[in-house]
Amino acid sequence: MLGVCYYPEHWPCERWAEDARRMRELGLTYVRIGEFAWSRIEPEPGRFTWAWLDEAIETLGQAGLRVVLGTPTATPPKWLVDRHPDILAVDKEGRVRGFGSRRHYSFSSRVYREEARRIVTLLAQRYGQNPHVAGWQTDNEYGCHDTTRSYGPEDLRAFREWLQARYKDIDALNEAWGNVFWSMEYRSFEEIGLPNQTVTEANPAHWLEFYRFSSEQVASFNRMQVEILRAHSPGRFVVHNFMGYTPDFDHFKLAQDLDIAGWDSYPLGFTDMDVLPCTEEEKIRYARTGHPDMAAFHHDLYRGVKPRWWVMEQQPGPVNWAHHNPSPAPGMVRLWTWEALAHGAEVVSYFRWRQFPKAQEQFHAGLNRPDFEPDVGFFEAKQVAEELQNLGSLPPSGPAPVALVFDYEADWVFSIQPQGKEFVYRDLVWRFYQALRRLGLDVDFVSPGADLSPYRMVVVPSLPIVREAALRALQAFTGPLILGPRSGSKTESLGIPPSLPPGPLQELLPLKVVRVESLPPGLWESLEWGGKTWAVGVWREWVESRLVPEARFADGKGALYRDGNCLYLAFWPELEFLQACLAQQARAAGLSPQTLPEGLRLRRRGPWVFAFNYSPEPCLVPAPEGARFLLGGREVAPYNLSVFKG
Amino acid sequence: MLGVCYYPEHWPCERWAEDARRMRELGLTYVRIGEFAWSRIEPEPGRFTWAWLDEAIETLGQAGLRVVLGTPTATPPKWLVDRHPDILAVDKEGRVRGFGSRRHYSFSSRVYREEARRIVTLLAQRYGQNPHVAGWQTDNEYGCHDTTRSYGPEDLRAFREWLQARYKDIDALNEAWGNVFWSMEYRSFEEIGLPNQTVTEANPAHWLEFYRFSSEQVASFNRMQVEILRAHSPGRFVVHNFMGYTPDFDHFKLAQDLDIAGWDSYPLGFTDMDVLPCTEEEKIRYARTGHPDMAAFHHDLYRGVKPRWWVMEQQPGPVNWAHHNPSPAPGMVRLWTWEALAHGAEVVSYFRWRQFPKAQEQFHAGLNRPDFEPDVGFFEAKQVAEELQNLGSLPPSGPAPVALVFDYEADWVFSIQPQGKEFVYRDLVWRFYQALRRLGLDVDFVSPGADLSPYRMVVVPSLPIVREAALRALQAFTGPLILGPRSGSKTESLGIPPSLPPGPLQELLPLKVVRVESLPPGLWESLEWGGKTWAVGVWREWVESRLVPEARFADGKGALYRDGNCLYLAFWPELEFLQACLAQQARAAGLSPQTLPEGLRLRRRGPWVFAFNYSPEPCLVPAPEGARFLLGGREVAPYNLSVFKG
Amino acid sequence: MLGVCYYPEHWPCERWAEDARRMRELGLTYVRIGEFAWSRIEPEPGRFTWAWLDEAIETLGQAGLRVVLGTPTATPPKWLVDRHPDILAVDKEGRVRGFGSRRHYSFSSRVYREEARRIVTLLAQRYGQNPHVAGWQTDNEYGCHDTTRSYGPEDLRAFREWLQARYKDIDALNEAWGNVFWSMEYRSFEEIGLPNQTVTEANPAHWLEFYRFSSEQVASFNRMQVEILRAHSPGRFVVHNFMGYTPDFDHFKLAQDLDIAGWDSYPLGFTDMDVLPCTEEEKIRYARTGHPDMAAFHHDLYRGVKPRWWVMEQQPGPVNWAHHNPSPAPGMVRLWTWEALAHGAEVVSYFRWRQFPKAQEQFHAGLNRPDFEPDVGFFEAKQVAEELQNLGSLPPSGPAPVALVFDYEADWVFSIQPQGKEFVYRDLVWRFYQALRRLGLDVDFVSPGADLSPYRMVVVPSLPIVREAALRALQAFTGPLILGPRSGSKTESLGIPPSLPPGPLQELLPLKVVRVESLPPGLWESLEWGGKTWAVGVWREWVESRLVPEARFADGKGALYRDGNCLYLAFWPELEFLQACLAQQARAAGLSPQTLPEGLRLRRRGPWVFAFNYSPEPCLVPAPEGARFLLGGREVAPYNLSVFKG
Ligand SMILES: [Zn+2]
Ligand SMILES: [Zn+2]
Ligand SMILES: [Zn+2]
Repeated sequence: MLGVCYYPEHWPCERWAEDARRMRELGLTYVRIGEFAWSRIEPEPGRFTWAWLDEAIETLGQAGLRVVLGTPTATPPKWLVDRHPDILAVDKEGRVRGFGSRRHYSFSSRVYREEARRIVTLLAQRYGQNPHVAGWQTDNEYGCHDTTRSYGPEDLRAFREWLQARYKDIDALNEAWGNVFWSMEYRSFEEIGLPNQTVTEANPAHWLEFYRFSSEQVASFNRMQVEILRAHSPGRFVVHNFMGYTPDFDHFKLAQDLDIAGWDSYPLGFTDMDVLPCTEEEKIRYARTGHPDMAAFHHDLYRGVKPRWWVMEQQPGPVNWAHHNPSPAPGMVRLWTWEALAHGAEVVSYFRWRQFPKAQEQFHAGLNRPDFEPDVGFFEAKQVAEELQNLGSLPPSGPAPVALVFDYEADWVFSIQPQGKEFVYRDLVWRFYQALRRLGLDVDFVSPGADLSPYRMVVVPSLPIVREAALRALQAFTGPLILGPRSGSKTESLGIPPSLPPGPLQELLPLKVVRVESLPPGLWESLEWGGKTWAVGVWREWVESRLVPEARFADGKGALYRDGNCLYLAFWPELEFLQACLAQQARAAGLSPQTLPEGLRLRRRGPWVFAFNYSPEPCLVPAPEGARFLLGGREVAPYNLSVFKG
Repeated sequence: MLGVCYYPEHWPCERWAEDARRMRELGLTYVRIGEFAWSRIEPEPGRFTWAWLDEAIETLGQAGLRVVLGTPTATPPKWLVDRHPDILAVDKEGRVRGFGSRRHYSFSSRVYREEARRIVTLLAQRYGQNPHVAGWQTDNEYGCHDTTRSYGPEDLRAFREWLQARYKDIDALNEAWGNVFWSMEYRSFEEIGLPNQTVTEANPAHWLEFYRFSSEQVASFNRMQVEILRAHSPGRFVVHNFMGYTPDFDHFKLAQDLDIAGWDSYPLGFTDMDVLPCTEEEKIRYARTGHPDMAAFHHDLYRGVKPRWWVMEQQPGPVNWAHHNPSPAPGMVRLWTWEALAHGAEVVSYFRWRQFPKAQEQFHAGLNRPDFEPDVGFFEAKQVAEELQNLGSLPPSGPAPVALVFDYEADWVFSIQPQGKEFVYRDLVWRFYQALRRLGLDVDFVSPGADLSPYRMVVVPSLPIVREAALRALQAFTGPLILGPRSGSKTESLGIPPSLPPGPLQELLPLKVVRVESLPPGLWESLEWGGKTWAVGVWREWVESRLVPEARFADGKGALYRDGNCLYLAFWPELEFLQACLAQQARAAGLSPQTLPEGLRLRRRGPWVFAFNYSPEPCLVPAPEGARFLLGGREVAPYNLSVFKG
Repeated sequence: MLGVCYYPEHWPCERWAEDARRMRELGLTYVRIGEFAWSRIEPEPGRFTWAWLDEAIETLGQAGLRVVLGTPTATPPKWLVDRHPDILAVDKEGRVRGFGSRRHYSFSSRVYREEARRIVTLLAQRYGQNPHVAGWQTDNEYGCHDTTRSYGPEDLRAFREWLQARYKDIDALNEAWGNVFWSMEYRSFEEIGLPNQTVTEANPAHWLEFYRFSSEQVASFNRMQVEILRAHSPGRFVVHNFMGYTPDFDHFKLAQDLDIAGWDSYPLGFTDMDVLPCTEEEKIRYARTGHPDMAAFHHDLYRGVKPRWWVMEQQPGPVNWAHHNPSPAPGMVRLWTWEALAHGAEVVSYFRWRQFPKAQEQFHAGLNRPDFEPDVGFFEAKQVAEELQNLGSLPPSGPAPVALVFDYEADWVFSIQPQGKEFVYRDLVWRFYQALRRLGLDVDFVSPGADLSPYRMVVVPSLPIVREAALRALQAFTGPLILGPRSGSKTESLGIPPSLPPGPLQELLPLKVVRVESLPPGLWESLEWGGKTWAVGVWREWVESRLVPEARFADGKGALYRDGNCLYLAFWPELEFLQACLAQQARAAGLSPQTLPEGLRLRRRGPWVFAFNYSPEPCLVPAPEGARFLLGGREVAPYNLSVFKG
């Protein structure tokens, strides 16, 4: 199903009915409204102007649209900030982050929690049972503009309370963090500070706990809203719109309180801005399409975050916020929409209905231009709506053959202590994902500890802190299990395990990492494997083990270890190596990896196979003979797709 | 005429008379003094030591020099700052900008305005009718060191007052800025903050108004000084010394209060520091000469700012403030001086008489060395003085054939919202200017709304906000009129015009820009025009029009539109394209564009043609047969010039 | 002799005895302890827990180890900081540098001086006469993490007092600094501020005095500790562990209060992080060995700082703090140890005994792994210990043939006012040193004013401020004396000398630098010398002299001047030129410069010659026929060494 984001408060109310009519004509079902409208709902403290919102909902609803109503907590109005300046966040350098844009609040502000509770309650009471309101969106893009972490007095207070609750005893904390190291020992939780603005790096355990705390503050802020909404709005779903790769808080945990994970998909901006890192060559080649794995990565990630998921904001044309904002290649809005659906999206909702000719996002295209004419995206959305109509309901998505174990905490651990500048978790996951996708394999992202029995193969790019549940799930898995470097290398308190890495994973693999080293760019070691020599940079480990390595570095040290179904990579893998290695493992798992033409990607949904062509040349689809094409044909034009039954 | 900047307070008074005598011998007419001397005039609050300045002026005057006296407001002394710390400016990051160098004041400080008024009044009263005082310089280099904009409490207060005076009604402001967008609506002017230190970008309209306000604060601070000087010093001119490209305030507006626009010309430093951007290759090739269009651009700009103009500070040797400070090639001090005169300078004044062997600028060469011997520049200045003597008075400068419409506000608009990182107004103007100069054409800079009837051709690199007067002037012009991208793309409040860009310019050109896109470096589109293919990067527009485009992009969309005498470029032009396109237009205007050898530049002053050779090779001057050479000959040696009557 | 750094407080006391036994078995003599243990000595204000330290010293001593006891002043505990927040330093941007790592104090804090005095006195009283305590280390790595300079209220107070004591009269200061320049004149010392946070650069004289003041604050803080230790601990030495190139304070001056200069040698981290600048190619080639002159440079520097010197911390494996932390090539820990001994180190002490699996340095290898097994470095140290045993005592080191005059103040002068971005004192010294070492010459670093009579040749990369003693020492020297650019170019107050540069050195060389220029990268001048053409970049001077230059630039100006034994380089020399030029001078001095294979370095200690091979290929040692090899042979394997009697 399709939807759109709409801001009735931006347009004369006389136009609302026509807008609603045209939305329905276009084939849209959902319309998201309200998430930045606090100043229009409560223009002065305690004075409410509900009439316009009442009317907007009624108008949209009467036209047959289902409303997703946003809570406006991402944009507290100026009067609220002036009354309570302590709600403002403080950046890492100690500067207050002021009013004038959005997300100007700290998750730890007690006052702001009260204010948010108040406005959400009022909204939920008023519209919770409105027949046109299908569901709620909490706030907007948590974490956007680096707002997960704040360094002000309220944050310090809350952090101390959180630590006290977690450790109980200050000596336990000192011991766990190793505070004896530089006389960093505390006598009480009241002595603990924030980890920013130290003379040199703070204790990495200090940072990790601050990251955990900050992540949980987002979740508890959201939970507070969800509880109100559930209390006053029975039968409605609750969604939040997540963003492109945002590791600052644990989405798996936050999403436990949601019904649906939404996410905001801007393939061009993400490619230009390295949301997942692209080479300079890729940035140019895919400037008008987005990197072919960019949207898919996030679809699969957020499907892992929550089985029900939406694209809450779909790029409809050029955006305003990247360094460079090209126009999508013709057909891409349709392609992106279909790709989201192929990956299992319940709804794809375009952002926004009409380009607003003022303020920060005036260069952000919409389905309609600011002169009220339809823009290019409008027609592509229309085509999708019609195609959906013709095809009928899509078959359900089963589990993918491959699971990728993804861990937000891993990102924190390696950000805090990379030990080699290029050891970036995001990059490591991204190259595992790309390697699998280039092999034509579908991938499910799962959190550590998730049941792995539905899968044929499991990859763990890295999992530094392995807890009991994760260990049990990995142990229970019998197919090919590929473990990346630094897995099991850290304790809960970011120390080195007493038995050395991979710590608890030594139950799976009898080996010990006795030394690690990071390599400067340009220093390449090499590896013999599968009859070829592969370059190794960035990271290398020295392993002691009774196992005979499956591959060795040029100096004879072991690089690749296998015990039964378990494979351990004692180095940072290059993409080409990964592709070869994972292909081998996939074959061992009984899968049929392919080598897809560059720019072509596949995705299955039940018996349907979707093929997407991101390249400027036509591609032949690897469809079996006699395949029945539901959309397109064997040759896919540039920026186009085919759907066939295999 | 020639002059020099002199600091009697740096040298023993016993030396002043000899210095003055040698200045006259060298052929200098003007001497600027006093602009940093506050601590010597008023060493303690209310205690004045005029005697030395009395004597200095008398000594210089007796020697036959005409004094330009500077007001010392760029350097308030420490005691003043300690008494009134609130005069200090605050930077964008919220840090107070302290005492210890210069320009340590905010234009919005009420206390500082009073202090400035006090000291200027005392100076004007004492020397306003002194026969040796020919004129006054206000302050020194407004805006230097990023001092136009300040972010402190006094600035906030003044900004709110300014907005109140401009908008009267807060609802009008909210509506104009589109503050509904993110609940940014204000209930009163007292709620408005400064646009820095927001969580993400502030409303661009907020920034634009802050830029306008800041620009006007400079002008009103200057006006306050000018009014005092005019009241007490009848018959004397008032000048300010502007700098290399400084877009932060509108020089056209400020200069309305002046008699003469001075500017400070440092071609080598400007080339090294990208005051106008140079390629790495140009930086090396022109390291000892300055880019051949660098000084000329500014001469033409400041002549546009004010018909009477001076080079108030002329580089006389290596400077101290660039990353690299090479020695000028032999002859360049002479060449630069002549080039200023060729462009119409009334006076060229060298900075400084003698290198001061202490403090911040001790590596800045003067006409004399710190050991009191003449330096290289001395002899080159002497040669100019003699040549001027021999040639007699120079013919007056008429209007140039080409006008370039230059707009400070355009710089603000595109800085605030570039939409593509490489879309920089300065670069766009600079490439239009270079293209014209390489064609041997003289150029006048004019402000939007200026009378264009004297010109044969008009170029508008871009004019995003087109007001009534500018529109009328463009409409009235009948020669080739070339409009660059994004012209007419913005309303007064930095919104998109309701009829889409080019907004008001649709009266000239029946077209509508329905989409814009910015391209990453390396992504080249192409354009067919004049039988050639031209690369297009940075920026492209999608146009709807009944006009048949004169050139199309490879995808068939229109790139170049003409209606009558009007040409619209729907893209960011490369220099080579511009040169070809403007040559064609110039021919259509009846002009005779040439292709000059690299490094050679021409400039006409009445019937005289000046030819300047910036290259290390001799050049042949494109003089007609039988031309009479007033200086040099048909072949110009490196770093030399010729003057001929055509 | 060998030693190790040990942290008993990190490990259960049950393990201490075994650790001590194994240290002795390994062949270690010294063990440094205690320098970060304040929170374990005084866990609460005034409550002391000496027992563990008593026991640790006793255990180590009983095992036959000699203890070096550190004062814990680099890490004041949290309770102290909370009681006295004013001890914290303030960074250049005005931000307080908080608790949570180390070195969180300002040298100017009066309270902190009292607290340091208190804890050092207590330690000295308790352990000063302990028979196992051989000596003391003051604090740890002064200046680390940019902590020499602080910009808080206590610093301002102390700076004013320091200036008052130095200048007595404020007019003298104004005159010396040239404060008239921009009305920067002060009426009293109370008006003076710190030089940071000015609008543009502060007066360079202001900065230079602040640098001098900051340097002296470190020395006086250290002196305070030394005096206490001497009073309470007769017969024990006092050492401090300096770092890789740390120009912020004058080590020559501080070391006057020490018995031994220690330094902390991390060749791989220094190479990766440009402690002395390496090319990208060198960073890769020497990633696992360190640049072949990196450790040697510092050995020679710190031997100049103090004749008795130690490597207090020797890298034993990968470290944690560089951008990239590779494992040393096999053999390098041994090679580095021998190289230190060859250069005259009294003791080489490994950092640390065992890798600590928590906190900031958990990735820093030790001689033992965190799982209590010996690591690679352990075995290499063991080999050295055995070799030392076999060889018996090493012959004493005489003076080297070449002295390099090194001046901390020169680093300050050129940092404050480089005049050309690439004019960096560190780079200049580094290239002189490399040139000499590639010629196989041993080098002594000496401070300006040191007696030069023991030397055959003296190089002065640059000495901008030449004081009486330095001038006399240079005048008295009769061998080849090579003076680099900008020598003698500055007065004590950072002005230009009245007679122009080289100021006082004009007593040695009758020349006058009348102009200087800095060149952008890529702008090469050239020089004819020795039958070849040499490229010159970065810096060039224009000289007037009655001397005929020994070499000229392409434009005919003099580049190289000689008067008797004195040679002056009026330009920034490239390494290749330096190597040729210094070879010529060395031959003139009767020395026999060689051209060593890349990666091979020599060092003499009495009649013994040590040859170190940093390259991945075997090398032939330039040993005379019949040389007797004490270690290794004529062919040195990669990462290995030979010792022979010449
Ligand atoms: Zn209804
Ligand atoms: Zn007079
Ligand atoms: Zn004992």
